[in-house]
Amino acid sequence: MFKLDGSWQERYNATAVFTFRCRFADTALAFSKFFQIADKAGVHTSDVQIVDADDTTLTRDIKCFCKNVAAAEKFSGMLEAEGIEVVELIDNVLEIHRRGTIDIVSRVPIQDLTDLRMVYTPGVAEACKLIESQPEAAWEMTGLCDRVAVVTDGTAVLGLGDIGPLASLPVMEGKAAIFSEFAKVSAFPVLINSKDPDIIIETVERIAGSFGAIQLEDIAAPSCFKVEQELRDRLDIPVFHDDQHGTATVVLAALINGLRRIGKKGKDCSVVMLGAGAAGYAISKVLQHYGIGDIVIYDSCGALYEGRTEKMNPWKEELARVTNDENTQVPFAEAFKGKDIFIGVARPNMVTKEMVASMNKNPIVLPLSNPVGEITVEDALEAGAAIAADGRGINNALAYPGLFRGALDARAEDITLEMQIAAAEKLAQISPEGDLLPDMIDRGTHEQVAQAVSQAWINRK
Amino acid sequence: MFKLDGSWQERYNATAVFTFRCRFADTALAFSKFFQIADKAGVHTSDVQIVDADDTTLTRDIKCFCKNVAAAEKFSGMLEAEGIEVVELIDNVLEIHRRGTIDIVSRVPIQDLTDLRMVYTPGVAEACKLIESQPEAAWEMTGLCDRVAVVTDGTAVLGLGDIGPLASLPVMEGKAAIFSEFAKVSAFPVLINSKDPDIIIETVERIAGSFGAIQLEDIAAPSCFKVEQELRDRLDIPVFHDDQHGTATVVLAALINGLRRIGKKGKDCSVVMLGAGAAGYAISKVLQHYGIGDIVIYDSCGALYEGRTEKMNPWKEELARVTNDENTQVPFAEAFKGKDIFIGVARPNMVTKEMVASMNKNPIVLPLSNPVGEITVEDALEAGAAIAADGRGINNALAYPGLFRGALDARAEDITLEMQIAAAEKLAQISPEGDLLPDMIDRGTHEQVAQAVSQAWINRK
Repeated sequence: MFKLDGSWQERYNATAVFTFRCRFADTALAFSKFFQIADKAGVHTSDVQIVDADDTTLTRDIKCFCKNVAAAEKFSGMLEAEGIEVVELIDNVLEIHRRGTIDIVSRVPIQDLTDLRMVYTPGVAEACKLIESQPEAAWEMTGLCDRVAVVTDGTAVLGLGDIGPLASLPVMEGKAAIFSEFAKVSAFPVLINSKDPDIIIETVERIAGSFGAIQLEDIAAPSCFKVEQELRDRLDIPVFHDDQHGTATVVLAALINGLRRIGKKGKDCSVVMLGAGAAGYAISKVLQHYGIGDIVIYDSCGALYEGRTEKMNPWKEELARVTNDENTQVPFAEAFKGKDIFIGVARPNMVTKEMVASMNKNPIVLPLSNPVGEITVEDALEAGAAIAADGRGINNALAYPGLFRGALDARAEDITLEMQIAAAEKLAQISPEGDLLPDMIDRGTHEQVAQAVSQAWINRK
Repeated sequence: MFKLDGSWQERYNATAVFTFRCRFADTALAFSKFFQIADKAGVHTSDVQIVDADDTTLTRDIKCFCKNVAAAEKFSGMLEAEGIEVVELIDNVLEIHRRGTIDIVSRVPIQDLTDLRMVYTPGVAEACKLIESQPEAAWEMTGLCDRVAVVTDGTAVLGLGDIGPLASLPVMEGKAAIFSEFAKVSAFPVLINSKDPDIIIETVERIAGSFGAIQLEDIAAPSCFKVEQELRDRLDIPVFHDDQHGTATVVLAALINGLRRIGKKGKDCSVVMLGAGAAGYAISKVLQHYGIGDIVIYDSCGALYEGRTEKMNPWKEELARVTNDENTQVPFAEAFKGKDIFIGVARPNMVTKEMVASMNKNPIVLPLSNPVGEITVEDALEAGAAIAADGRGINNALAYPGLFRGALDARAEDITLEMQIAAAEKLAQISPEGDLLPDMIDRGTHEQVAQAVSQAWINRK
């Protein structure tokens, strides 16, 4: 039996989920035509629901997986040509995002004046006076204990780049939906209409009192480094750039399990990494803190080495100082020789099977670029990788819900490196035997991560 | 039969709602003692629920209305003295505010990877690309169509004054809870850590893209005027200071019905008002636009008259120019002679029965200061008021949910005076016969107001 977590649909290689709302004569034979035509069109069908009926016809919603939008429209034409009325073609993905993916709701039903007078005047004044005399009471008497800002300027969104804050809003809402579903964190999207890091910093500081913690999201490097560091210094609540540390936490967890499975120790492993932006920076710092061997990082200009002047910034310079022990400058294609681990955090289709084949025996290959990796997992495995996983499995959504839930529960002032490592170790520990990482959908995963993170703050030195 | 909307509890004149969690021997006789002692203590009892049991005892939660917190504690001591164990004394009001009164939740259950891949990557990219190519699609593909900021600097909170943003947060959350419950508006509290109007303006402008509309709340006059006007000019979404226009809308609605009931026309009525802050300013503007007779406004220095120099500001100067036709400077106590309507938006216990008795026949008296009015409704009626109502009945929560719902539904760029008047007329029209205003708890009230407000925007000249 499949665990019906949706992963079985991956075999369709379909990116478009459409509901075909069609009207049929009310016979099974008439309905069977739909599936015959779907077969010709290369469309896979899923659940069916009757949504309307009259004396002679039935209208059914049939959920379908299509290769892409064009294939769905072509299938629609084929149905019409065969006399099946397509009442409506519903893009399931867009439907889910209609009116957004989060709501703000009352925790208290307001059904009569008594309710109202406790939620609002005059009862609410009691909560206000308590906080006025004891500010720390705000953590119990308001929603600050659950409330996180998801802040962006829209300059580095998923695989889409600098699309601006408005177009990035569905992503921010999606993150907030995940925060709520997985960890009962109330996350609110904050769009800032400036790319100037100083303006972003100042604006967030002015509204920081509205939140128990701040998540920075999809802010391009190198601005993101300055914004995070400055806000961490100024605020007494956690400020956490997920593209950096969420990625690093999950990569570390996957490597802990991957290295254990192939019987290698981190200190004996060397790493070649493609990408020296937010994710590359944070992954390198975490891996070095955890005790990995040498890392050589590549960007579009080649290797990061001490002394390089081309396209550098203070964070790449820092990386160049602490990585690449031999100061090598070999071209990227030759950089895989003698390496045990490849990590890609750059862009699609940059790594060949030959490069993987030139790595040390039983390499770990993690092509994490979203939505298409630096090499496919299949190609990496064929080229000899002992372990290969891409961004679908190595997903920040395994880290940030538990990290923030744990930080909020402990009233932490920061999400420290130790808390990130505690999260990574817990993720590695609770993974089912044979899996690199635990089940992201299981709410228990995030609860356990949160507990480990809270403990790491409480036990801090 | 009472309509059990909680208003019947007003006869207890109790401000404290407590749950007494007590353990009793499991006999009705033992339980009866509780009520005998309550009677001695002047405490009124409400619902009872058994919450625990063992072989010989029952633990019950008994909800009680006490005059105040001290009376509740005294009653608790009396119970203990008579051998009834008080396990816990729960302040119901504070309990309601524990962890705050709003949550941010996902509109989409995330139960498997398919859900996740539609809410987030890769499906979410479709929504992003759509908005990138058609920015107006954001209104359908995100929650902007329901999303309002409730912005404060905490300088003018309810009857508490300048308690700062943190202590004001329960009030902001309460407003958001009401927004959600009454009009399915998703309202988010934004606390700004500065009283400088220029900083408030700039901060709100930087994050305005996160919202479909902005509500300004509990920002002291005269800053509130500058902040609202400047933001209305700069933003293409509605910016609305509720303490001004929410109050004005509901006052107008009450006066429309009140005047109709006593058979007077607004243009034949003159008004004496106490309070020249946010509410006084906006009420005066709306009433004059609607066609009231002369208004004379009083503040702590006496009448506003053209040429006064003491404690003026540009908004009081504007009021002084357009009100007080005779430029009178008589003291407040003599200002009621010849007036048909009194409106109080200042502070408690400023108006005597003699003042009301000196008004024109069948006066309307609205002492709106919260939580205690300028005169009690009972005293006003005894002094001859034909109609008297205070802040409990004349409540902004009748106006702002429908005003914002209507503005959002029409994608309005502003909440105009015409929309406020449309709301007021609708509130007046749908009030049950004999009532000044309709039922605030009835969701239909707010739906009807919203429809009238949307129409007023659509039909704008």
